[in-house]
Amino acid sequence: MQPIQAVTWADDGDGVRILDQRLLPEREVYRVLRSVDEVCEAINTLAVRGAPAIGIAAAMGLAMSIPAGARGDVGLVLADADGRLRGTRPTAVNLARALDRVMQAGLRHRDDGAAMRDTLRDEATKILDEDRAMCRRIGEHGATLMADGARVLTHCNTGALATGGIGTALAAVYVAVESGKRIEVYADETRPLLQGSRLTAWELQRAGVPVTVLADGAAASLLRDGEVDLCIVGADRIATNGDVANKVGT
Amino acid sequence: MQPIQAVTWADDGDGVRILDQRLLPEREVYRVLRSVDEVCEAINTLAVRGAPAIGIAAAMGLAMSIPAGARGDVGLVLADADGRLRGTRPTAVNLARALDRVMQAGLRHRDDGAAMRDTLRDEATKILDEDRAMCRRIGEHGATLMADGARVLTHCNTGALATGGIGTALAAVYVAVESGKRIEVYADETRPLLQGSRLTAWELQRAGVPVTVLADGAAASLLRDGEVDLCIVGADRIATNGDVANKVGT
Repeated sequence: MQPIQAVTWADDGDGVRILDQRLLPEREVYRVLRSVDEVCEAINTLAVRGAPAIGIAAAMGLAMSIPAGARGDVGLVLADADGRLRGTRPTAVNLARALDRVMQAGLRHRDDGAAMRDTLRDEATKILDEDRAMCRRIGEHGATLMADGARVLTHCNTGALATGGIGTALAAVYVAVESGKRIEVYADETRPLLQGSRLTAWELQRAGVPVTVLADGAAASLLRDGEVDLCIVGADRIATNGDVANKVGT
Repeated sequence: MQPIQAVTWADDGDGVRILDQRLLPEREVYRVLRSVDEVCEAINTLAVRGAPAIGIAAAMGLAMSIPAGARGDVGLVLADADGRLRGTRPTAVNLARALDRVMQAGLRHRDDGAAMRDTLRDEATKILDEDRAMCRRIGEHGATLMADGARVLTHCNTGALATGGIGTALAAVYVAVESGKRIEVYADETRPLLQGSRLTAWELQRAGVPVTVLADGAAASLLRDGEVDLCIVGADRIATNGDVANKVGT
């Protein structure tokens, strides 16, 4: 089975379709967000989460701020939506970058609502498509590091649920499995928000990858006993010297 | 404020008074167990937990198996109660030892129900009193290792809630504070059952000791940064060579 799609356009093209991650792993419920407010609320309440997925959802939300048939200078409407979306997660770099990019494209057409609307949507779609392609490439590169039979330890969620595609670091597992390698995953539950047990384990299981959840405190003895071949962790930021900032326990 | 009393005789002397640990930290509810079945249920459901506390509760429960005014050979009643209590936690050494001891004392009077009843109660009370004294001594020894201003990291619960007295390893903190030392505790939440955040943090806070709960995964960086002077962990068993068996993360 394929990894899930955490964020994409709604089937009718007029909304952002997200998997509501607040309900995982108990229920797999998709929601269509039809307004900037709904997108803000989804980001604020972690219904959509993961830096790339948040950036994509915000870009799409911004694109939806201009109503069909808008005329005249719609720059103020756009600026207002941008401000609200940006405020949801002031520290998320992907979010600010995605909004910058969509704003910049849109403002070239500030006197033409219809053209702006199309441009915003095109730019948001580009961000989604590029993210999907990036995820795939990360997966292809990462999979070369995984031997057949590799036992992989994960901390936090770096999978499809965090992106528009098949995940960042966890994409390597999906590509390796796709190419016929047998991969077994140990997923740290990842306190305090349980992204490992709630999200990583769920999406791997759904995609048919064998996964075992463990208390974070069990990782050390697992590593010491040589039961782990490879570790995958999230990275909020990576410095040029290789330093990684990420959540506690990484 | 004094540390709490997890298990003791009921005020009327005719039951085991326990603090129901299933309801912590939300509610501090005491229950009086009036029969062997109620004691078994309390141990089975972790209403009373911690090896010493379980041993004491079981000893008291066994003492209650012989009704007032019992006559003739009550050895069978006693053996039946012993079997049921022993079955609640086959791996807990304190439980088996406490029951052995109470049984042995009681069976000296198998032809005299009244004498047996008194002897069982006396022996159970001795076990409780000895446990209290042991806790106090452990605390006094341990406190000598704690400097004024010490920052102590804990894993699991080794406090008053696990014993009949002021705790095993955590007793050192209580005695140090009693003697005027300023002690600050970092309590690992201790997954998967959260004995640290639910129990250790609760009983320390109730006794007025400053305590900060942290995700287990945060302990490593706290130790690395030199923020911890001393660690206190539970010990299910300690081998003669110093090896300790305890829960994951220790």
